[in-house]
Amino acid sequence: MSARAGIVVTGTEVLSGRVTDRNGPWLSDRLAELGVDHAFTLVVGDRPEDMDRALGFLASSGVDVIITSGGLGPTADDVTAEVVGRFQGREMVLDDALEGRIGEILDRYMSRWPGLDPAAIRASNRKQAIVPAGATVLDPVGTAPGLVVPPASGNGGPTVVVLPGPPRELREMWPAAAAADAFGAAIAGAADYRIRTLRLYGIPESEIAQTLRAADAAGPGLDGLEITTCLRRGELEVVTRYEPGAADAYDAFEALVRARHADTLFSTDGSTVDEQVAALLRSAGWTIATAESCTGGLLAGRLTDLAGSSDYVAGGLVVYSNEAKTALAGVPSSLIVSVGAVSVEVAEALADGARRALGADVGVGITGVAGPGGGTATKPVGLVCFSVAGPEGRRIARSSRLPGGRADVRERSTTVAMHLVRRLLRGETDDASVLI
Amino acid sequence: MSARAGIVVTGTEVLSGRVTDRNGPWLSDRLAELGVDHAFTLVVGDRPEDMDRALGFLASSGVDVIITSGGLGPTADDVTAEVVGRFQGREMVLDDALEGRIGEILDRYMSRWPGLDPAAIRASNRKQAIVPAGATVLDPVGTAPGLVVPPASGNGGPTVVVLPGPPRELREMWPAAAAADAFGAAIAGAADYRIRTLRLYGIPESEIAQTLRAADAAGPGLDGLEITTCLRRGELEVVTRYEPGAADAYDAFEALVRARHADTLFSTDGSTVDEQVAALLRSAGWTIATAESCTGGLLAGRLTDLAGSSDYVAGGLVVYSNEAKTALAGVPSSLIVSVGAVSVEVAEALADGARRALGADVGVGITGVAGPGGGTATKPVGLVCFSVAGPEGRRIARSSRLPGGRADVRERSTTVAMHLVRRLLRGETDDASVLI
Repeated sequence: MSARAGIVVTGTEVLSGRVTDRNGPWLSDRLAELGVDHAFTLVVGDRPEDMDRALGFLASSGVDVIITSGGLGPTADDVTAEVVGRFQGREMVLDDALEGRIGEILDRYMSRWPGLDPAAIRASNRKQAIVPAGATVLDPVGTAPGLVVPPASGNGGPTVVVLPGPPRELREMWPAAAAADAFGAAIAGAADYRIRTLRLYGIPESEIAQTLRAADAAGPGLDGLEITTCLRRGELEVVTRYEPGAADAYDAFEALVRARHADTLFSTDGSTVDEQVAALLRSAGWTIATAESCTGGLLAGRLTDLAGSSDYVAGGLVVYSNEAKTALAGVPSSLIVSVGAVSVEVAEALADGARRALGADVGVGITGVAGPGGGTATKPVGLVCFSVAGPEGRRIARSSRLPGGRADVRERSTTVAMHLVRRLLRGETDDASVLI
Repeated sequence: MSARAGIVVTGTEVLSGRVTDRNGPWLSDRLAELGVDHAFTLVVGDRPEDMDRALGFLASSGVDVIITSGGLGPTADDVTAEVVGRFQGREMVLDDALEGRIGEILDRYMSRWPGLDPAAIRASNRKQAIVPAGATVLDPVGTAPGLVVPPASGNGGPTVVVLPGPPRELREMWPAAAAADAFGAAIAGAADYRIRTLRLYGIPESEIAQTLRAADAAGPGLDGLEITTCLRRGELEVVTRYEPGAADAYDAFEALVRARHADTLFSTDGSTVDEQVAALLRSAGWTIATAESCTGGLLAGRLTDLAGSSDYVAGGLVVYSNEAKTALAGVPSSLIVSVGAVSVEVAEALADGARRALGADVGVGITGVAGPGGGTATKPVGLVCFSVAGPEGRRIARSSRLPGGRADVRERSTTVAMHLVRRLLRGETDDASVLI
């Protein structure tokens, strides 16, 4: 049996969705690296009784460690340290040395906010130095310290690791938490397991369901493999978790997927299409440029997400208006009049215009109807036209009807474009029968 | 006592963070509109025993209704309907009429995927027609039906609403779920309460903590107000929930915030800075254009997020390379050599270049060091320079050191730019003492 963990994300703003939780997923990855089985994430508001219930649930589910994020700030709704201390049967005490360290941090911080009253700020932050007796204190990254709180001696149950809510502070503090003796003792039963990811593009989920049934019936079957499939931004991800003893079963399963889905399987090593496009551009020594209408800069934004992208991203044009399409990307206004702004022809002219304007090797043109308005019978909401143009006359163009609302159509369009760029860079022909 | 609800989001891909949960937050808003108190969101993997524990926890926490999302697909790891049926003490039965409806949907769907085997797909999807006896079936939006499942007669406990995982399907199905008799009966105790949001920019959280203490000590105090504060993309949100009887207390609290934070409070009606910028551009009849370096198109992407933004967004330039800054935005290469690409001067030239190239009224220039590489002693990672230029020589420029990693710096930069645009559009002067 592997060690198990639960995560408690606190904050009414997360529960209500005003803030997207980035800590649960990040902590889940860290736990996986340590071989700890992540069983639950609970999101709770800033009510002490609900937080207490969440801790009680995880303890009764038999987890060995609980990680909390958030609720360590200076306002009265920040109650995590106190709730955890009580839950673990430990008294709350003022840690003088910690108060001093927080004071030093505040002095530095205050220089950025001239005109504030230092005494009032210190009063607000004193509560951050009140911690459960016997807890391991983790040095603040912002102003809030973290805590590793084992149950009081005699009490059984999980050890609780208390981390701050801001993702940057939590991430910077994590190594200290993971290195704490009490944490190591709590996860002593961690298993050695592997996680493999296959990614496919242009395939419905029911096709993979068939392959899973075929794999189950053949050879070593699926024993020992924990397989989950999910659709994500138009791609299908197949993630498998297994202990080393099931390696043969996994290899047989992966071989079957390769054989049955050779045309849609694009990643077997965990790489994303973004990373593949970056590597292909680097190895070709080529630069890329965009001319976007309905996506309004999102593809350029996605291409520049990766550090070092200045090596191969020349830049882009956001040509939302027809005037801009003509002035910046050189799309003939007569073409727009004759075939319409949303057309494969205009997408091709945009791709050529992006190459020319930025002096790039590869150009991408996107034009479509993101909605909710602007759709017609022949050009409905969700219709998006793409073109990718490269050196030596290489070109791939496509027109797709994408599902969903405005945000879905815009985001999905960047994924389609990425896959078309990947195909062009791999020298694949423009085979329109490939569902892309 | 108000009716209470819990949400269970299923899927190992959500638990591990490969997919961001968009359903929990959306459902939370719908529950709030109905006056139902949302107490917990649990994220669980695709293991039946963990899902069962999650339902048990919510039932024992006394919620009146549980909403699940996901786990209704055709693969073997999709087990929600069965787990919920068993939890509610109901037998699983094949619904023939439902199987027929799913069959019709698949026939239409198959026309998009020529070459697939219809019989195999139908077999994969038959399990989607096996539902708990006595449940209300909600018509499929994709291929999966939803369910409203009250406890079997004699059993107490919450009613469970089972919805599909894809956000578009879940949202489209929600009105039918909310209209079901069994759902209405479960939330009969819903309260009438109000939610108000204040947004501030350029203020540390400890300042609001002080204001909360002052409000608590004065006049009607904070009785009956449930106030949560949170930092979000560089903005501070103060959300207050209260029943109608506490309206006076809320009004007094809001007046105090207005008085103490007049210079940083920018929204009292729930509007975002994005919406305010859109409204200001519309009322001025102005267009906007961008020239972005380190943000690589993210500001243009954000400006075009809102439907109808083609009315005021002219377009943008993504000028990642110095050559592009000169060729497209007309930044003199001599200026780049003398002051460096990351400088307020180049930001100003970018803003002017964006106005000129796109023929827009307002131009925004952004240039900075997003990291992780590229920082120097005088221009460290996180240093970003902004300029907004408008008609009649209006201009606001700023240089900021933004915290966090590459993604944080890029995203936060779009927020700073939005606030600078807002100030220029409101005719505010370029007061550098305002912390923006």
